[in-house]
Amino acid sequence: MAETLTLHEDPRSGNCYKIRLTAALLGLPLATRQYDIMKGETRTPEFLATVNANGRIPVLQIGKGAEALFLPESNAACWYLAHGSALIPDERFAQADMLRWMFFEQYNHEPNVATLRFWLRFVGEANLSAEQRAQIMPKRIAGCAALALMNEHLGDTAFFCGDTPTLADIALFPYTHVAEEGGFGLGDYPHICAWIARITALQGFVPMG
Amino acid sequence: MAETLTLHEDPRSGNCYKIRLTAALLGLPLATRQYDIMKGETRTPEFLATVNANGRIPVLQIGKGAEALFLPESNAACWYLAHGSALIPDERFAQADMLRWMFFEQYNHEPNVATLRFWLRFVGEANLSAEQRAQIMPKRIAGCAALALMNEHLGDTAFFCGDTPTLADIALFPYTHVAEEGGFGLGDYPHICAWIARITALQGFVPMG
Repeated sequence: MAETLTLHEDPRSGNCYKIRLTAALLGLPLATRQYDIMKGETRTPEFLATVNANGRIPVLQIGKGAEALFLPESNAACWYLAHGSALIPDERFAQADMLRWMFFEQYNHEPNVATLRFWLRFVGEANLSAEQRAQIMPKRIAGCAALALMNEHLGDTAFFCGDTPTLADIALFPYTHVAEEGGFGLGDYPHICAWIARITALQGFVPMG
Repeated sequence: MAETLTLHEDPRSGNCYKIRLTAALLGLPLATRQYDIMKGETRTPEFLATVNANGRIPVLQIGKGAEALFLPESNAACWYLAHGSALIPDERFAQADMLRWMFFEQYNHEPNVATLRFWLRFVGEANLSAEQRAQIMPKRIAGCAALALMNEHLGDTAFFCGDTPTLADIALFPYTHVAEEGGFGLGDYPHICAWIARITALQGFVPMG
């Protein structure tokens, strides 16, 4: 790949880690530029104007200078990196089914499993607003439902879309493997634990953080 | 396409409408089977065992009988239907950028814009739980931020990914064009209003519901 790839990230973010893990499994060089989201470094006028008007990381930057392209949304960035690789199945249904798990991750998993980790591990329960506190129990229930669905599915298959890893696994791994930091007990989900072990054993695997 | 396509849907759901709109724009025949989500018809043991263990619609069914495949997640179903069509750009960055808007839809837009419509139009404010009521204002703010970002982007481009419609437009159209049912005023977003007019003028367009 000729283009320089730069990840705008906060290393504590599982969404950023998805992109680093994809690049590592594919052997792609990836530069990083780090921001502290707790200090509002992704909401500065410069960041909003040049990197992402949505004020969020991760953003994958492709190229440099005036020609650079910026791609927000972690799963879209993984898709870009994995173009043409075995991490994206070619077959029509398999490809759509992989995206199905990636949309599930953003809709059913991340807002519950990742948000509770962020609140309890990084913000601190004592610092939560009343609105946030009211959401702990609904997010706990929804997060457990997402983990239970994953566990059931992984009882039948080594990876989310068959015998080999795809972007579905990469999307779901980061916040799942640290779910206990958000108060979820992984001991209830043995198939998830076995899958975590399979992911960490992959050639090229890099840890989070 | 030789396979029979069946959409398991509730016609009031914008997520279901995405799939009907994709099929209509592509001229694909699509059978439908309807459920009333307000009556829990997608949480029955039969539905969970055969259609979607996640208890949600839409689900796209491909084929019939024992050979049938089931694909949950609206945006994944649209991806399956649009395979090989002009609704998915071929070029690597453009394709990833289209997915970027589809993930944005599921993460930043749908949980705010669609959920407030569901609560205020279908559940009724008086019937909301205390937890739900506490989320109205955060969801209002986040929904307005999503609409503002879309409006800004559409000031520069006819459709989300350039001069022609893609799945990004189909994913974002359903809940945006009925956002006023959730208390969002579209008059603040003139570029969104012009884009809605462009979508409804497309050859093959079908309305929601």
